[in-house]
Amino acid sequence: MSEKGAVTVARTVLQQCLRATLQVRPAEEDSEAQFVQIERGMVIYICFFKGATDDILPKMVSSLLNLRLCESDSGKMVSVAELPGSLLIVPQATLGGKCKGRAMQYHNNISKEDGLRLYGAFVSLCERELTAAAVTVKHGTYGNRQMPSFDFMDKVELFVRA
Amino acid sequence: MSEKGAVTVARTVLQQCLRATLQVRPAEEDSEAQFVQIERGMVIYICFFKGATDDILPKMVSSLLNLRLCESDSGKMVSVAELPGSLLIVPQATLGGKCKGRAMQYHNNISKEDGLRLYGAFVSLCERELTAAAVTVKHGTYGNRQMPSFDFMDKVELFVRA
Repeated sequence: MSEKGAVTVARTVLQQCLRATLQVRPAEEDSEAQFVQIERGMVIYICFFKGATDDILPKMVSSLLNLRLCESDSGKMVSVAELPGSLLIVPQATLGGKCKGRAMQYHNNISKEDGLRLYGAFVSLCERELTAAAVTVKHGTYGNRQMPSFDFMDKVELFVRA
Repeated sequence: MSEKGAVTVARTVLQQCLRATLQVRPAEEDSEAQFVQIERGMVIYICFFKGATDDILPKMVSSLLNLRLCESDSGKMVSVAELPGSLLIVPQATLGGKCKGRAMQYHNNISKEDGLRLYGAFVSLCERELTAAAVTVKHGTYGNRQMPSFDFMDKVELFVRA
């Protein structure tokens, strides 16, 4: 979300998938690992930076969900809702990394509390926007180690929304 | 590859993987689809923009390959060469996309000819840099439709090098 000269406060990377699985909870002594899974659709990795506020979310969500990124069976470019496809949202703090020598630094990332709140609001907005389109929305758990598995990716379309 | 105020001429997204497969040639009437595959290591998606030249490559390759992004078995952060892991390079023109209404535009992407040349040079430099470390380098075919399959991703670390 930035214009020339503006500060970047969120970054997303989108990938189209035929199937995507995300481990949302690792296995523990007395419980098995938990997963969420979608079939054909789109994965959104998202990271908020310092300065991000709730008022950026509606435009961001609307823009992401209505972008014509997906190729329909007839070859027409459509949105994930029009596909119709499912949506998997993955919190990805490493999108905020900057190289410092050989190490990565994340000083520009939002605080964990604010990030958790914005992430929750982002997921809710996506769910609300996509209810009418009967699109399934699944999401990862903020702060947990994510273990995604992409059984097959069709025409990966990564891009950066800065 | 940008400083404040400088023009971005290349963008990469990195993902760590336990295994990654890329279809480099689709099936045709008289031939089966062709794939390249790596086991544990790193996937680099790369896109060059207008203004990118060969002289950005050495620093870019050195920086990408020496970043401590990978978690070793002992939990220490190491580079892909130190892991030791393999490398899969994927040309990804969609990294240069910008939203224009609901559509994506790629006006800032480098010409196909220059992109092909830079991509080849980038792959060669990676191979040269990693020969000593006995790291396997596989790569996608520039301009072809890529069909990656990630059997399992361990701690996806996406980030943007702009």
